[in-house]
Amino acid sequence: MMETRRLLPSLALSPGLAEAGTRCLPEETAIALTFNGTTQAVMMASPSDLEDFATGFALTEGFARPDEIESVTAVETPRGIDLQIWLTRPAGDRLAARRRRMAGPVGCGLCGLDSLDEALRDPPRVPHSALRLSVAQAAGAVRALMAHQPLHDATRAVHAAGFWTRAGIVMAREDVGRHNALDKLAGALVRASRPATAGAVVLTSRVSIDMVQKCARMGAPVLIAVSAPTAHAVHMADAAGITLIALARGDRCEVFTHPHRILPDEATDVA
Amino acid sequence: MMETRRLLPSLALSPGLAEAGTRCLPEETAIALTFNGTTQAVMMASPSDLEDFATGFALTEGFARPDEIESVTAVETPRGIDLQIWLTRPAGDRLAARRRRMAGPVGCGLCGLDSLDEALRDPPRVPHSALRLSVAQAAGAVRALMAHQPLHDATRAVHAAGFWTRAGIVMAREDVGRHNALDKLAGALVRASRPATAGAVVLTSRVSIDMVQKCARMGAPVLIAVSAPTAHAVHMADAAGITLIALARGDRCEVFTHPHRILPDEATDVA
Repeated sequence: MMETRRLLPSLALSPGLAEAGTRCLPEETAIALTFNGTTQAVMMASPSDLEDFATGFALTEGFARPDEIESVTAVETPRGIDLQIWLTRPAGDRLAARRRRMAGPVGCGLCGLDSLDEALRDPPRVPHSALRLSVAQAAGAVRALMAHQPLHDATRAVHAAGFWTRAGIVMAREDVGRHNALDKLAGALVRASRPATAGAVVLTSRVSIDMVQKCARMGAPVLIAVSAPTAHAVHMADAAGITLIALARGDRCEVFTHPHRILPDEATDVA
Repeated sequence: MMETRRLLPSLALSPGLAEAGTRCLPEETAIALTFNGTTQAVMMASPSDLEDFATGFALTEGFARPDEIESVTAVETPRGIDLQIWLTRPAGDRLAARRRRMAGPVGCGLCGLDSLDEALRDPPRVPHSALRLSVAQAAGAVRALMAHQPLHDATRAVHAAGFWTRAGIVMAREDVGRHNALDKLAGALVRASRPATAGAVVLTSRVSIDMVQKCARMGAPVLIAVSAPTAHAVHMADAAGITLIALARGDRCEVFTHPHRILPDEATDVA
């Protein structure tokens, strides 16, 4: 297990004062995600929860379903971690074919139009979910996540992704990268056999389209974020059937799509 | 010119009240960066300052020097923008060779160890710079950048990268992505023939290693950020000869590397 944070010297400057001290900073480790011997991506990430990360990345980026993963081995090297994921034969063959297709028939790579299509593939619609939550629960989920962010408490510089159910935040993962935190959560849910359809994903970050794509592939019906979504993310959440709640601060929040999953307070006035 | 923001319907929820209204959100557009007909990357970005973006991305990601770019054309499509960059013949040949090398001899792609080496290539050391700045200037640069963030003022949801000299913030660019904002600034400086060695790069974001790598390739001697660096980013800034100032809030900041570029206040006590 590698450390996720490090104490480094720092010189604190304020008017008329320079004070030598230390600052606890998050580690940022290069992690190669290598499927059946070929690296698909190198992510700069917090070196923790690596099996969750491998499983979640494979799922949310569409490389393999969890049941197609035969083994995950994290190999530490001086330059970073080689996260070696071995897939079943059919999944490995499918991935090799996808790779050949993306490299193009003459090995020159995709042109711009094909690349745009590849990046913007529509996510699946989330499965049916009976989940409903009140305004107080939606706004409170972000506050509840704060109790599950030890690396953030130490460094004030990492993101978290949590899974909320009526029992509160039942699972959370942290990372220097917001995508990685979500992938780790996705993998942790799968490995705990906990269906994402039964709760809400809670993010400390803003919501770009890749975060919505990942939630859709997880099957999560509700996404709650501290910061704002992009316009494109709103459209993608609408298309995926996800209730997108953002700007969740204090006891307020804003819902942008599929508000039917929000239960009205008994005393709610609709203005 | 595409719009960088859009007004979308939103339902503002607070205890006992649901208020239908609108919210100004940033656009997020898929932009394919296509060099001599082959896409090298698709970035989700704010659709503005596209020539700056192309020029800066080519420079900071090591694809081509600015003088090797023959033309940049932005082709709008229903799926996004194909940003077509045409390089001189030698630069195009070099890029094709690099692409073949990264795809590996049998077309299977890099393995984990080679991929980690590729991701963590040491950045160049920044050239000599006479730039020095006081604590008040360093802390004030972040506040000064706030006057140059119109898209942030409208949406509260985008990042900015600015260039500070003794004359103040002389150039700034915004984007939904922090890397893109920095690439746009890098390109804008080059296209204005303004050497990055003469000032400081100011970021509204945190500092991961890719931000330091980009600053090093720009030749910027000082990097000032609102949020914290990662431990790895501190080491990379040290190796690149960059003065890394972070956690710049109010009249305070912290310096992590190469503090010789900070001028002591006359009244500074070194504790």
